[in-house]
Amino acid sequence: MVDFELDKRLATDSLPVTDLALGRVRLMNDRRFPWLLLVPRRPGCVEVLDLDDADQERLWTEIRLLAEALRAISAPDKLNIAALGNQVAQLHVHVIARFRNDAAWPAPIWGVGKPEPYPDEGQALIERLTAQLG
Amino acid sequence: MVDFELDKRLATDSLPVTDLALGRVRLMNDRRFPWLLLVPRRPGCVEVLDLDDADQERLWTEIRLLAEALRAISAPDKLNIAALGNQVAQLHVHVIARFRNDAAWPAPIWGVGKPEPYPDEGQALIERLTAQLG
Repeated sequence: MVDFELDKRLATDSLPVTDLALGRVRLMNDRRFPWLLLVPRRPGCVEVLDLDDADQERLWTEIRLLAEALRAISAPDKLNIAALGNQVAQLHVHVIARFRNDAAWPAPIWGVGKPEPYPDEGQALIERLTAQLG
Repeated sequence: MVDFELDKRLATDSLPVTDLALGRVRLMNDRRFPWLLLVPRRPGCVEVLDLDDADQERLWTEIRLLAEALRAISAPDKLNIAALGNQVAQLHVHVIARFRNDAAWPAPIWGVGKPEPYPDEGQALIERLTAQLG
């Protein structure tokens, strides 16, 4: 049994929020977008379909939980939810609050401009997120 | 009760595949990428969270079904699954088979180059998809 270890690039680009039943929640360290990562703590998974059925259901529950939390906190114009993983193989889902005046609108955010790290390491938002996620 | 009507832009850009219990399945008319759209037949929905709980569960089941079908047919290097909707408000989910030698790899496919319509209106792929989806 291999232990779960967060991919190094995901770890570098994001800040810790909390662990849910299945997924590790991280906040991308880019204050341009309220942008969460959900990373199932299952070693070796690349596709959603690599998870067993129960974990696939858990993943969806947690995706929706993160979407609800971001919606409650950020009141975005649109939520973006995506599992891409073309660059980082470790299965991870993006849940992003988008605004009509954000730096990438209406395009997807990946690869747009340079990340702008939070001045406070995201602590204000992370506190609201952890409160919202219970 | 308003009837469901497929968004005009989605209709223009894609070809009909089939209807599942919840979602209308369309093939994007772009032979560069095996690329499905899943559009819940629920008028007025924009976010996944706009669906009721039972439909949210159905949506996930159908997303996974499409992912499995594309994986079986196309044997991609990676699946991309995304609900964005920044340009077309009607709730729709992208399920895309990606390859390391495709026209956008490793970037997301949205907005990359110009769509290349299928010479056969996608009929060969659509037949395989409908067979795979049962």
